[in-house]
Amino acid sequence: MKEATFLKELKELDLLQQTLAILEWDSQTGMPEEGSEYRGETTGYLSGLYFEKKIGSKMKDAIEYFDQHPEELSEVGQAALKLVKEEYELNHAVPNELMVTFSAATSKAHGAWQKARKENDFAFFKEALAENIRLTKELIPYWKKEEKNDYDVLLNQYEPGMTTAILDEVFAEVRKGIMAIRQELNERGTKPNTDFLSRTMTKAQQKRFITKVVTDLGYDFSRGRLDDTIHPFATGINHRDVRITTRWNEQDFMMAIFGIIHEAGHGMYEQNIDEKYEYTPVHEGASMGIHESQSLFNEIIIGSNRSFWQKQYPFFQECAEGTFDDIAFDDFYRSLKKSQASLIRIEADSLTYPLHIIIRYEIEKMIFNEGATVEQLPEIWNSKYEEYLGIRPSDDLTGILQDVHWSGSSFGYFPSYALGYMYAAQLYHAMKKELAVDTILSSDDYSPIKQWLTKNIHQYGASRKPNQLIQDATGEALNPQYLLDYMKKIYFDVYQVNR
Amino acid sequence: MKEATFLKELKELDLLQQTLAILEWDSQTGMPEEGSEYRGETTGYLSGLYFEKKIGSKMKDAIEYFDQHPEELSEVGQAALKLVKEEYELNHAVPNELMVTFSAATSKAHGAWQKARKENDFAFFKEALAENIRLTKELIPYWKKEEKNDYDVLLNQYEPGMTTAILDEVFAEVRKGIMAIRQELNERGTKPNTDFLSRTMTKAQQKRFITKVVTDLGYDFSRGRLDDTIHPFATGINHRDVRITTRWNEQDFMMAIFGIIHEAGHGMYEQNIDEKYEYTPVHEGASMGIHESQSLFNEIIIGSNRSFWQKQYPFFQECAEGTFDDIAFDDFYRSLKKSQASLIRIEADSLTYPLHIIIRYEIEKMIFNEGATVEQLPEIWNSKYEEYLGIRPSDDLTGILQDVHWSGSSFGYFPSYALGYMYAAQLYHAMKKELAVDTILSSDDYSPIKQWLTKNIHQYGASRKPNQLIQDATGEALNPQYLLDYMKKIYFDVYQVNR
Repeated sequence: MKEATFLKELKELDLLQQTLAILEWDSQTGMPEEGSEYRGETTGYLSGLYFEKKIGSKMKDAIEYFDQHPEELSEVGQAALKLVKEEYELNHAVPNELMVTFSAATSKAHGAWQKARKENDFAFFKEALAENIRLTKELIPYWKKEEKNDYDVLLNQYEPGMTTAILDEVFAEVRKGIMAIRQELNERGTKPNTDFLSRTMTKAQQKRFITKVVTDLGYDFSRGRLDDTIHPFATGINHRDVRITTRWNEQDFMMAIFGIIHEAGHGMYEQNIDEKYEYTPVHEGASMGIHESQSLFNEIIIGSNRSFWQKQYPFFQECAEGTFDDIAFDDFYRSLKKSQASLIRIEADSLTYPLHIIIRYEIEKMIFNEGATVEQLPEIWNSKYEEYLGIRPSDDLTGILQDVHWSGSSFGYFPSYALGYMYAAQLYHAMKKELAVDTILSSDDYSPIKQWLTKNIHQYGASRKPNQLIQDATGEALNPQYLLDYMKKIYFDVYQVNR
Repeated sequence: MKEATFLKELKELDLLQQTLAILEWDSQTGMPEEGSEYRGETTGYLSGLYFEKKIGSKMKDAIEYFDQHPEELSEVGQAALKLVKEEYELNHAVPNELMVTFSAATSKAHGAWQKARKENDFAFFKEALAENIRLTKELIPYWKKEEKNDYDVLLNQYEPGMTTAILDEVFAEVRKGIMAIRQELNERGTKPNTDFLSRTMTKAQQKRFITKVVTDLGYDFSRGRLDDTIHPFATGINHRDVRITTRWNEQDFMMAIFGIIHEAGHGMYEQNIDEKYEYTPVHEGASMGIHESQSLFNEIIIGSNRSFWQKQYPFFQECAEGTFDDIAFDDFYRSLKKSQASLIRIEADSLTYPLHIIIRYEIEKMIFNEGATVEQLPEIWNSKYEEYLGIRPSDDLTGILQDVHWSGSSFGYFPSYALGYMYAAQLYHAMKKELAVDTILSSDDYSPIKQWLTKNIHQYGASRKPNQLIQDATGEALNPQYLLDYMKKIYFDVYQVNR
């Protein structure tokens, strides 16, 4: 077997993936509403070609041969082989029948979840959720490679190397820290005024502002584009075609502006993976958590930075054509960072957000490691919200039915959101040792920040694992203290706690 | 062999075609400029899968089996088999090597054509054009099935059943007729004033107007969409996803407005083919000429109709927000139909347009049936323009280099444009026997017109040949007199010849 044969097979897989990514992008941004049934036939057929090829004999032969002759592979070939092998080992033992049942169950559960949301009643989702959990538990033994507990197996599908042992410790610290900060703000802080945030800013005005901002931050529109969608996302079709989407609200400019900064962070990651990895599975993010670290670095670290906003505010005011001329910069800045407990995760502010994740993490762990039953879940959910956030959902819609993840059996995914946030704060801490970030954000040239992220994270794609990336970039393993320090700095300033 | 096996194979081919159509649409409407090289790899790979399948053993077996057992096929299966067999017979004897050479030559010729346009010098295109002609002549014997002359073989690739014998006669009549009308306008007509046509109408204003108009005409936006592009087109992805594109000029509203009416005509055809033919090659237009008859019916027959514009003008004025309030309806209507000889085909008005086509037809016939050499072509071209249109190109760019078709070896395509126009006029004549078209166009409900076209043309897709469709719909074969009568009616009215 020649390396070229192996790489050609990977390339063809990648071309099918690129095609599926365009079809998905199209169906979310522009496809005529009536076209979805036909589109399902097309993606179904192409996905079939993709999976056939992925577990086909050529791929199997390549894995077997190069496992014995790794020295015949280039660096790119070796990095690709590693990922292909991992995935192959994860899935090859799973009986095909079980995968089919699993896939059918998630599809059914998605419908049940939508029905339950419509009826605002968890009862309509309970059975399907139980079936998702049962089948996932049946799959775990096939996926389990080392001495891990069951939930660790699920975690590792999204964040290689992550364990409940680490997360228990880290999340306990984060939870305690955030609750202490919230108490401080409550007792000694001054709430920012946010009355003016709902002033009308047209889509065109918002677009003018944010297009310049993300271009400054380093998102490359000559290799990207921005479209409207209901659920915002970023998609890396290939190295030179990385698209982002958003939704707009003319009475709430923060939605699109922070949304686009967020998606541009994902986009910049994909645009700056070393192009030599293209057409292999290495030209992807290292993990969900690392991907989220890049979007949250943009959205929260940059997007909460006083110098950044001080520099941008005059242009923001210009784009708003007078609407915010009467708002002093300090009032504007503070309004962006108001914190308020909410029941809905995707509406949470950057201080309380991790608490929403921790609640989900604890519940998932109870399901898979401690035998919690679906009947118990709503009560567990509501009590945890009361305990951690001080508010209790009054119905299932604002409680346990709010997220799509469980209907798709994506158990173990939620922690990625909080990991990304902690990684972002830790990377920021490391970056500040080398760069005068505030000075850069006060200047006309933000490029050193992007360059730092590309040098330390982006370029490697999936050739390094999350823990290695973080260790190499910051000199230590995941450390939640940086997130807490960062939150204190931002929120104590905004709430004028020490004034 | 079961019919289901045959239909499944056709469906998979169709799904690949749908995918390629989306990729092409995307690359023309939205793909980031840097993405084209990667996109080429994707479409190259998928096209490869498509052609492999198309000439694969399953397809060959199906053709052979059902050729012997046609009674085992449903109506849809039979219609599909007929088309598949035709294409198979056309191409299966062509040596693969020759097709590869042919394909490489056209690709090279396209580059040479662009270079020649840049240099405004036919000399840069001459050799590549000669090679395209040489290879096409080499292919003709493989494509030739009956006693046809060489150019007939080319014509039939775009218009099944069409011959030079028919076109010689028809085009002679059309040419004579148009030249007579032009002389009349010249001697006794009053030229419309067109000064105000260049008044600014914003894209948003134009879009508001034309979206309503094509919706009224029957283009279904719930199964379609309108995008911006450099070269406008319509693409039927599938029955429920038929997209159109346009370019806008705020100083020339006619470009987008007539352009969109035109593309919506193509779109309405694809949207109204009987859905039972979906996933087979029957769910396509019957020919280039028939497809063009539907776009030109919209653009020229509807778009030149006085009642139509009388009804729409108040709304047009409303959309233009005052810009045309000082223009009386009669002046506005007449301005749309000014005729003026031009050197450029795509800028030609609806009276002189067929002359541009006839010139190309005559030249192509000289090349393939009469041995004209490429050296002679510019002089032939220029003399014919002088003879038919009274103007002579002063350079190659406004002369022989203006069209892309020959660089792609699309010899025999041009007549489709004129055929479409003649079909449209003939269909209009037949329609008027059953419908009070002017009354309908003065009303709020245009649907009887679309229904008539669907009943007589759209629904059949490619299950009937052009000549059968025209015979059945109009009661006679192609008759150019309807076009000439129509032109006289419109232009004598606009030019007030009989006043």
